[in-house]
Amino acid sequence: MVNGVRIAGVGMTPFGRAAERTIRELFGDAADEAFEDAGIPRDAVDEVFFGNYMGEFAEQQAHSGPLAAEAAGVTAPATRIESACASSGAATRFGYEKIRTGMADVVLVGGAERMTNLSTPDGTAALAAAADALWEIRAGMTFPGAYSLMANRYFHEYGGSREDLAHIAVKNHENAVENDLAQFQRAIDVDDVLEATTICSPFGLYDCSPMSDGGSAAILVSDSFAEEHGLDAPVKIRGAGQHSDNFSLADRPSMTDTPASTRAAEMAYENADISPEDIDVAEVHDCFTIAEVLALESLGLYEPGEAITAARDGETTIDGELPVNLSGGLKAKGHPVGATGCGQISELTKLLRGDHVNSHAVEDATIGVTHNAGGTVASCVVHVLEVES
Amino acid sequence: MVNGVRIAGVGMTPFGRAAERTIRELFGDAADEAFEDAGIPRDAVDEVFFGNYMGEFAEQQAHSGPLAAEAAGVTAPATRIESACASSGAATRFGYEKIRTGMADVVLVGGAERMTNLSTPDGTAALAAAADALWEIRAGMTFPGAYSLMANRYFHEYGGSREDLAHIAVKNHENAVENDLAQFQRAIDVDDVLEATTICSPFGLYDCSPMSDGGSAAILVSDSFAEEHGLDAPVKIRGAGQHSDNFSLADRPSMTDTPASTRAAEMAYENADISPEDIDVAEVHDCFTIAEVLALESLGLYEPGEAITAARDGETTIDGELPVNLSGGLKAKGHPVGATGCGQISELTKLLRGDHVNSHAVEDATIGVTHNAGGTVASCVVHVLEVES
Repeated sequence: MVNGVRIAGVGMTPFGRAAERTIRELFGDAADEAFEDAGIPRDAVDEVFFGNYMGEFAEQQAHSGPLAAEAAGVTAPATRIESACASSGAATRFGYEKIRTGMADVVLVGGAERMTNLSTPDGTAALAAAADALWEIRAGMTFPGAYSLMANRYFHEYGGSREDLAHIAVKNHENAVENDLAQFQRAIDVDDVLEATTICSPFGLYDCSPMSDGGSAAILVSDSFAEEHGLDAPVKIRGAGQHSDNFSLADRPSMTDTPASTRAAEMAYENADISPEDIDVAEVHDCFTIAEVLALESLGLYEPGEAITAARDGETTIDGELPVNLSGGLKAKGHPVGATGCGQISELTKLLRGDHVNSHAVEDATIGVTHNAGGTVASCVVHVLEVES
Repeated sequence: MVNGVRIAGVGMTPFGRAAERTIRELFGDAADEAFEDAGIPRDAVDEVFFGNYMGEFAEQQAHSGPLAAEAAGVTAPATRIESACASSGAATRFGYEKIRTGMADVVLVGGAERMTNLSTPDGTAALAAAADALWEIRAGMTFPGAYSLMANRYFHEYGGSREDLAHIAVKNHENAVENDLAQFQRAIDVDDVLEATTICSPFGLYDCSPMSDGGSAAILVSDSFAEEHGLDAPVKIRGAGQHSDNFSLADRPSMTDTPASTRAAEMAYENADISPEDIDVAEVHDCFTIAEVLALESLGLYEPGEAITAARDGETTIDGELPVNLSGGLKAKGHPVGATGCGQISELTKLLRGDHVNSHAVEDATIGVTHNAGGTVASCVVHVLEVES
């Protein structure tokens, strides 16, 4: 049995600093909004998949599946899914598959993360647990370091410059200016990026996504449930894919290739019966500026070595042919890691439905894709969304 | 599509003290054994679900789905499932559903936990993250305290005594004597239990499961895959269920009732099309002696208030009508929390296949059940296994 899967409702807290708010509160708020958006009762939910990455570090709180369900007012099987920064992307995929296969009619998915209550060193240590504790972290590697290796290697193999990357940060800040849910609602220019404090060469401050608090939620329903209850749910999940890779960067044949993403995309496209050319808009995992480049190439939207100039050339800007990260991306919308994947689903759903502040840029769009990566893309989840025209 | 799901192979490290071994090594060993048992190549695996609870505390390591897949020599979508002590029970259910619905033919499930490298205070703090950090742990509650409240309330409502509970510990130690994988391969008597150091009244040391290191794995395959490859896989998973409850003990209407377990069991029985009377043998989550009592009642094997004397009366002993925890249970086999749920699957599979040291006690058994709980049963997973006669 292959059932159609629809997004009946989405919700997202503002991403940003809310250090005093707990993970359960952040998710509860996002879920409240998703239920209101969907217009269905909480007791319709068959299962909950909840993404959280660092509750142990932020709140000494694990086992957050049942806790999240309770915060959402739902009694159902509930499981915490942890796949680093791809946690709620994976949670969304699990919900999708549950409905697609006819095992459920209504699934609540989402995630939440609390990060800014930690000091920068503690937050950095918490994030580092998504890399290899034995072979990367003990050697002094943290994520800015790992991604800067990837960026430098990319420059070596294909060319490209800090300035090319700067255009990605500028674009994503620009997209966030009017997005009330974004952490940084202000424009920056290329000079701001190039002159910012160096974090790890070639990255300055603006090449890096921030620490953020936030929650996200989506209510997925079967076609038949949507029809039976007369729901207004024009956005479908047409496909989902997930894959993994060798955990340490050092164990991979290439530092500029992210096969977990390539395979996740192939799986999602096959599921959805589309090819990359069909994609009108994308929300991708730009935890660092180079990550957006690698994402676009692994998704098959650009050839290897060619996405580096996409933002600079205006191809992925709000007026470009393929707008990328119209939400502001992780860079400017914020990156509460466990909430990010479903946050992309929430933003893309609104973009496609026409109720996002940047929807005007994608008026004719029918197909969008989300790309949510964990670690240095040791895990990746891709979703294909389609809006009924 | 409802496909049959078979257990093609199982593996388990010895549970006990292996403080120097990493989570990835423990799982890699369990997976090696499972692949050898199954006799299928690693590249046949479509997906990996890996249970781990406290990697953040033990090794500063999260994001362990891809890491576990790599340790097992598998390249596939891989996700860490965290549901406290029910983590690998939940991972097993996800694998079961993936095959049952026709989305996969071969899934590697399992879990691993490293605990004894932590000091007792640090280990206790790590375990406490499975309870409510805000409303239980800050009030000084840890798991021995929470379960002792449940035991005292049980005594108040239904009667029963420390001595009744002692018989459960005695039984489970007895069952472990010949189990080479068990942490405590020695018999104890009722006086040993009653005279042991008090942990939290009414519990003495022997009412409590230990800290343990260990890994477990199972390779699940579809009926059609088993047939096509001529596999010797006589044990089927006939059903699986999972449910959740209010997170804090204080938020529940009863302290002697575990509805997450009741509902998980109902779901699994419905899936399997059986009733409790059909069950010949059970592996249940005896993290504390009282937990075995609550498990048997919530599984519908005993009426409320009646399981307290089951071990004492010899009904659940190795020679009883319904042997419970023939592996030694969490009490004597050990409780590396993230590995426990799939460890139950591994032990029950061997018991039913006839290659477990205690298989002689269940020669005529066809249907067995596993019960794996998280926290104070805020989450629970139940599986129904059947061996072809």
